[in-house]
Amino acid sequence: MSERKKLAKASLESLYRIFTVPEAPDSTLGQIDRSISQNLAGFLQEHIVAAERDLADIERDFADPHIPEQPTFVSDQIQFVLDKLVAQSVHISAPSFVGHMTSALPYFMLPLSRIMMALNQNLVKVETSKAFTPMERQVIGMVHHLIYQQSDTFYQRWMHDRGHALGSFCSGGTIANLTALWAARNNVLAPRGDFAGLGQEGLLAGMQHYGYQGLAILVSERGHYSLGKAADILGIGRRSLIGIETDANNKIRTDLLARKCDELAKQNIKVMAIVGIVGTSETGNVDPLDEMADIAAERQIHFHVDSAWGGPTLFSDKYRSLLKGIERADSVTLDAHKQLYVPMGAGICVFRNPETLSSVEHHAEYIIRKGSKDLGSHTVEGSRPGMAILVHSGLQIIGRQGYELLIDQGIEKARSFAEMIKAEEDFELVTEPELNILTYRYLPADIQQALLAATEDSRIEANQRLNLLTKSIQKTQRGLGRSFVSRTRLNPVRYQRDPIVVFRAVLANPLTTTDILSDMLAEQREIAARPAMLAQLADVRALLGIG
Amino acid sequence: MSERKKLAKASLESLYRIFTVPEAPDSTLGQIDRSISQNLAGFLQEHIVAAERDLADIERDFADPHIPEQPTFVSDQIQFVLDKLVAQSVHISAPSFVGHMTSALPYFMLPLSRIMMALNQNLVKVETSKAFTPMERQVIGMVHHLIYQQSDTFYQRWMHDRGHALGSFCSGGTIANLTALWAARNNVLAPRGDFAGLGQEGLLAGMQHYGYQGLAILVSERGHYSLGKAADILGIGRRSLIGIETDANNKIRTDLLARKCDELAKQNIKVMAIVGIVGTSETGNVDPLDEMADIAAERQIHFHVDSAWGGPTLFSDKYRSLLKGIERADSVTLDAHKQLYVPMGAGICVFRNPETLSSVEHHAEYIIRKGSKDLGSHTVEGSRPGMAILVHSGLQIIGRQGYELLIDQGIEKARSFAEMIKAEEDFELVTEPELNILTYRYLPADIQQALLAATEDSRIEANQRLNLLTKSIQKTQRGLGRSFVSRTRLNPVRYQRDPIVVFRAVLANPLTTTDILSDMLAEQREIAARPAMLAQLADVRALLGIG
Repeated sequence: MSERKKLAKASLESLYRIFTVPEAPDSTLGQIDRSISQNLAGFLQEHIVAAERDLADIERDFADPHIPEQPTFVSDQIQFVLDKLVAQSVHISAPSFVGHMTSALPYFMLPLSRIMMALNQNLVKVETSKAFTPMERQVIGMVHHLIYQQSDTFYQRWMHDRGHALGSFCSGGTIANLTALWAARNNVLAPRGDFAGLGQEGLLAGMQHYGYQGLAILVSERGHYSLGKAADILGIGRRSLIGIETDANNKIRTDLLARKCDELAKQNIKVMAIVGIVGTSETGNVDPLDEMADIAAERQIHFHVDSAWGGPTLFSDKYRSLLKGIERADSVTLDAHKQLYVPMGAGICVFRNPETLSSVEHHAEYIIRKGSKDLGSHTVEGSRPGMAILVHSGLQIIGRQGYELLIDQGIEKARSFAEMIKAEEDFELVTEPELNILTYRYLPADIQQALLAATEDSRIEANQRLNLLTKSIQKTQRGLGRSFVSRTRLNPVRYQRDPIVVFRAVLANPLTTTDILSDMLAEQREIAARPAMLAQLADVRALLGIG
Repeated sequence: MSERKKLAKASLESLYRIFTVPEAPDSTLGQIDRSISQNLAGFLQEHIVAAERDLADIERDFADPHIPEQPTFVSDQIQFVLDKLVAQSVHISAPSFVGHMTSALPYFMLPLSRIMMALNQNLVKVETSKAFTPMERQVIGMVHHLIYQQSDTFYQRWMHDRGHALGSFCSGGTIANLTALWAARNNVLAPRGDFAGLGQEGLLAGMQHYGYQGLAILVSERGHYSLGKAADILGIGRRSLIGIETDANNKIRTDLLARKCDELAKQNIKVMAIVGIVGTSETGNVDPLDEMADIAAERQIHFHVDSAWGGPTLFSDKYRSLLKGIERADSVTLDAHKQLYVPMGAGICVFRNPETLSSVEHHAEYIIRKGSKDLGSHTVEGSRPGMAILVHSGLQIIGRQGYELLIDQGIEKARSFAEMIKAEEDFELVTEPELNILTYRYLPADIQQALLAATEDSRIEANQRLNLLTKSIQKTQRGLGRSFVSRTRLNPVRYQRDPIVVFRAVLANPLTTTDILSDMLAEQREIAARPAMLAQLADVRALLGIG
């Protein structure tokens, strides 16, 4: 049957057809579907237009706020999707896209996703998910075991327990962090005497009952922006998320952390959580978790670890020790859509103690009833898709050893890339890769030397101009569409904490080769040799007196 | 290439292969993939086992907390998924599954989902989503227009404005409601003088600055459980979500609402939001939005409408007027994964005033920078998938007229079903369908009459026993696997607000026929004729003196 006939006008009969008759294999959609399953890389290569179009220009294709009155043929809409949306999307899975935390996906994820979509289970309750509920509980249990290594008896007792949850599966690390901090906050102002708990009575009543002047969350200045958002949402306020200074390696200074805890205690401000980071978003560094755990334990503070990025490093025999102390965390965030190589929309938060998450437990009449095993009783979200099937399959098909190889090759590739950058005369490595993230900038050797010898004013001024240059190079390279690094702003000790704009490379795609990285540097050098950029460099040299 | 060879042991070479070589068409996964695209209904029919297995039994297949050391063959894992997960999943899309808010999906949603998964865009920022960002802004704009019908100039000005968002696309109605209430709360305690706003300084400082004794949210007693959760998360406390009594039709009593507002004002408790409902989860009723808007406007209170379920009724020329007043709401929640027939994981919240959501705006250094068009600056979530492509395509392919037909047939089918129930001697319609949801129970006519004439004690006792019977019938029917209604507990005026357990039918699947509904009633009658059930009925009759 031709697609053209499928929905020529809105009639009940034509509507029934879109619910019952599949796309014909020779239809536009049928062909694309086959082409993606047979050769994904080829499909993306063919359809994503490399050269960047201006966003304002793209917006013209998405400017109409009116929902069309008449139905559109499936084939027409699909052609629109191909020409206007796919063509102008980002080639996330390209081996030369090393700018953000999204990588290529294993092939099996796509047909598996279709099984998930076709079943369309809703994980909020057993009645709409059945076996998906125990499956998700197992996935949470596996991640719990990866981190906490509890006994088999522990998991027999708790993994499928109807009154408890070892963690929460959610759409991503932001909600995972929010879940952990929500539980921590509610445990700090827990029911006591005639106080029914913050969850029931609110923050104000809780503070009055416990006699606190305020609540605070402590994290290094490299903490993820989701923590500030959580502080806002939870009513603590962004100013009560206190950023502790980091050392030259972007790790939290535990001496300052301990001191701040004690200062706050004196002010009668209760620290509701200390947050350690495994793989900071910008530099990929790991906080000294064991020392942080000591500080938290001494003061009975909830210790949360945000390992959204770096958690899977635990798969690696070689690098696992970097995370020592994570097993002492009260809660841990891990994103499956990052280094578990699952499509977007899968985060997990696990809790060492099966009771911790009970502080946010909730029920309703028609679903997530008391005594049910419905997962919705311990989640921020309500209705949720069965993404856990993708994590389950990833863990089975790739296995611990497979993930270990993925992790190891990423870290080792980052180290090779760092060596390449250091060997180049005109690049500066700004942060060494501890995991698989590093930052650098374009900076010819003569400017580099002059910068370190310059007066404070000249140095600051020169770095400001260099920041503009780095931005221009990054944007130009992105626009050319062959490769992509992101950029961020750091305050390196080397430059007395001047704000420095850097390129940020994330090396998680196993298909990225050192040749690709070498080409990327070459392209950046070429861009820097354009007249406009050369003029900027000349200005900087003049400023530093080496013109 | 045979799957067996694909990942026999973890080696880098075998790992590269799962990232680069698609499933062979004759592999298990390849065959399933084809079978789903060619005949979804057949695939589900064949693989989902109808008869219910005990959950404890299913859990045995998901009991191991250890991540396997060695990789598993793709084909082995897929066989496991088929036998243990798909077989024991819920047949959500079956026309006889009328128990929850998840329906069948149009066929085109599945291959489109694969395009989405293959592109794996991340909507938090333009750099990882490009054209998906304006596309999502358009979808938000279209939903905004559906509700608020602003001028073309309005959308030209605001839809793609870098400093604003007309709404927030998220994983579902729960996060949508949370987003709306977060914005409302922050606007109530907005920056003023030397107070930097609740977002920065926290709830406690905000209350002190404004001199409020408390905050409250008002909604009918039929409000969705996500509102209680939001009250907890936002630090207001569940007790400050005040449930207002409903009338005999499950609509909020606006006289009591107004009175409560004034009472709270006298106590110096600030009402941060009044929430109206379009399609209560349990009975599908619509609050009198226009009157609620009056009450909110007079008192300058944020008026939020939770139309997660019923919002798409706006597509219907015939029934749109039921929602009169929604265009006066400050914010509106609508779930695309409900009556826009999109797979699980797509909710939307829109705001009448483009400034409202600015109270939750946030930025970071490496993404969602100030001045960018990154959508992540106005969302609860961080990284998010490109689900908006499915909503965009649904709106185009089905069109306003197509959705109208879907909405109308659902409401009319519910009315027919209500007539069927009323015509039966042994069923009681408990709530009439205003939209496409109704509730009823098995209740032979003689008991029905005796109940209405009984003393209070006997009536309460009899209803309690009937509740057990209703539960048993619902569970038994679910276990038989041919059809499914859910159940909930209501407090109908007819029984002096005794708690009454009822069957709940949601009629959104266009493939559900009246024959199917008739068979469902017949099956319930058969179940009620089983000896154990008959005995329960005899007890009730004895109690009421009609044994």
